[in-house]
Amino acid sequence: MRPTVLFAGRPDDWPVYAPALRAALKAAELDAELVHHADDPARVDYIVFDPNGPITDFSPFVRCKAVLNLWAGVERIVTNPTLSQPLCRMVDDGLRQGMVEYCVAHCLRHHLDIDRHVLNQDGVWRGSDLPPLATERTIGILGLGQLGAAVGQALAGLGFDVAGWSQSPKDIAGIACASGPEGLNQVLGRAEILILLLPLTDRTRHILNARTLDLLPRGAVVINPGRGALIDDTALLEALGNGRLRHATLDVFTTEPLPPDHPFWAHPQVTVTPHIAAVTRPESAARVIAENIRRGERGEPFLHVVDRARGY
Amino acid sequence: MRPTVLFAGRPDDWPVYAPALRAALKAAELDAELVHHADDPARVDYIVFDPNGPITDFSPFVRCKAVLNLWAGVERIVTNPTLSQPLCRMVDDGLRQGMVEYCVAHCLRHHLDIDRHVLNQDGVWRGSDLPPLATERTIGILGLGQLGAAVGQALAGLGFDVAGWSQSPKDIAGIACASGPEGLNQVLGRAEILILLLPLTDRTRHILNARTLDLLPRGAVVINPGRGALIDDTALLEALGNGRLRHATLDVFTTEPLPPDHPFWAHPQVTVTPHIAAVTRPESAARVIAENIRRGERGEPFLHVVDRARGY
Repeated sequence: MRPTVLFAGRPDDWPVYAPALRAALKAAELDAELVHHADDPARVDYIVFDPNGPITDFSPFVRCKAVLNLWAGVERIVTNPTLSQPLCRMVDDGLRQGMVEYCVAHCLRHHLDIDRHVLNQDGVWRGSDLPPLATERTIGILGLGQLGAAVGQALAGLGFDVAGWSQSPKDIAGIACASGPEGLNQVLGRAEILILLLPLTDRTRHILNARTLDLLPRGAVVINPGRGALIDDTALLEALGNGRLRHATLDVFTTEPLPPDHPFWAHPQVTVTPHIAAVTRPESAARVIAENIRRGERGEPFLHVVDRARGY
Repeated sequence: MRPTVLFAGRPDDWPVYAPALRAALKAAELDAELVHHADDPARVDYIVFDPNGPITDFSPFVRCKAVLNLWAGVERIVTNPTLSQPLCRMVDDGLRQGMVEYCVAHCLRHHLDIDRHVLNQDGVWRGSDLPPLATERTIGILGLGQLGAAVGQALAGLGFDVAGWSQSPKDIAGIACASGPEGLNQVLGRAEILILLLPLTDRTRHILNARTLDLLPRGAVVINPGRGALIDDTALLEALGNGRLRHATLDVFTTEPLPPDHPFWAHPQVTVTPHIAAVTRPESAARVIAENIRRGERGEPFLHVVDRARGY
């Protein structure tokens, strides 16, 4: 029987995703019906899901074989008590590549202190001390999933000393990997630039707090393209004020859009970017979704299934 | 006999270079006398040369076996009519690594338009169009010597489409290499970001002029960490004004320091950096100099000898 695929994203995204999904389904030789509204939820076989879309109650979707998330992060769906269907995360080459570009760009920006020039075109030719080379600079990465590993390897490829941390032990070429509470302290202790790429769970919420910020080398930089609530914002502002941190470049926030009167906007040591670090790319995301539908139709295991207990 | 090595650099640099050169000479098992002033030029065996140092007339150095330049560029010495000794360029791993970092950093800065955020922290959460990925962005590099090749390969490693041009044909993994006048036109025609890493010679002076700038795609960016006179500054300002160029990031200038009243400083589409892209690193440079002295003492051919006719 022809499966029904419900696009449950933001209405604005339908004109972009409809052709991308149709092309990907066709390329996967799947004859599916793609809809963006289901008169009868009981007839839906797959849900393409965006937490900003219309669905909050999954219980009417009694035949649904899988909920296919459009985003890498799943913290806004994984705790939904009505969700009984398998949930798959988005692991998108385009999103991963975009994340690598954002992180490498901002690491190099802070490594070379490019803002000093961009913000001071005042006619003064400033000689400067010899900056360290990448080989003399340690980058810490918290989170070594698909994104953290790709970012770490790109930075190692440019010569940086990369120290990574994850909850469970990992072994990734080019990255000095640590895990567990003691490993976290070690990585923080030498991270001159720290990148947060952890999933948001009960264990990672406010992982960067007054205690852990104080472990960083003086004058460290924090880059957060992960999730806003990984950071205790009050502790971050305190660390910027007392010199522990030189700068924070933040792409994600506990409340988005970041309110116009939030102190981050006006703070000279904070750069706000509007959740642009890694964007799901319709073409590559549609290929991932079509592959999971193909697997579902053949009874094969889905890719990137979320472990509900672990939370990611 | 114990060779005499004259450090003919800026007096300020002597305290930094003296220990670096002594350590490198010792590591090369060379028993040499290192001086920063020669009472008798006829007794000097090697000159460590900086164009900003005290020597302009090489004719009294009748025994000198080689002039060892501290810089990658040799245009201020190669035309000196008193120079009869072999001249060696500096090819320094530290300088090359620094150049790679500068070029990759500014490419990513312009690729992702990071200035838009750095300069506009005004409380407005700006959604933005999906930016292209590096794989969809072409970087052009003029000059495929040690520096251009290293920069191109680092950019290719991040996924960029890299098109390179050099006077003579080259074949470098990861870079689409072109040469000759027609090749130059082709590379310019698709370079969304153009990096200048050519030596300055009669053939490359003003290689970026009104005609060649006009070949670039509209809204292109120029990054010049090579030599100031590669660019016709008047034509550059014209191209910035008419929309051909979106931005120019310039590290080198026909006159340095760039005068405070030069229009580049105040131009919103120009970023001036004070000749910092690639700095010779005393430790690694001293190793290159010691190796050439070792070769000279053994009668072996010098490394990185400049072709006086070619000019580099």
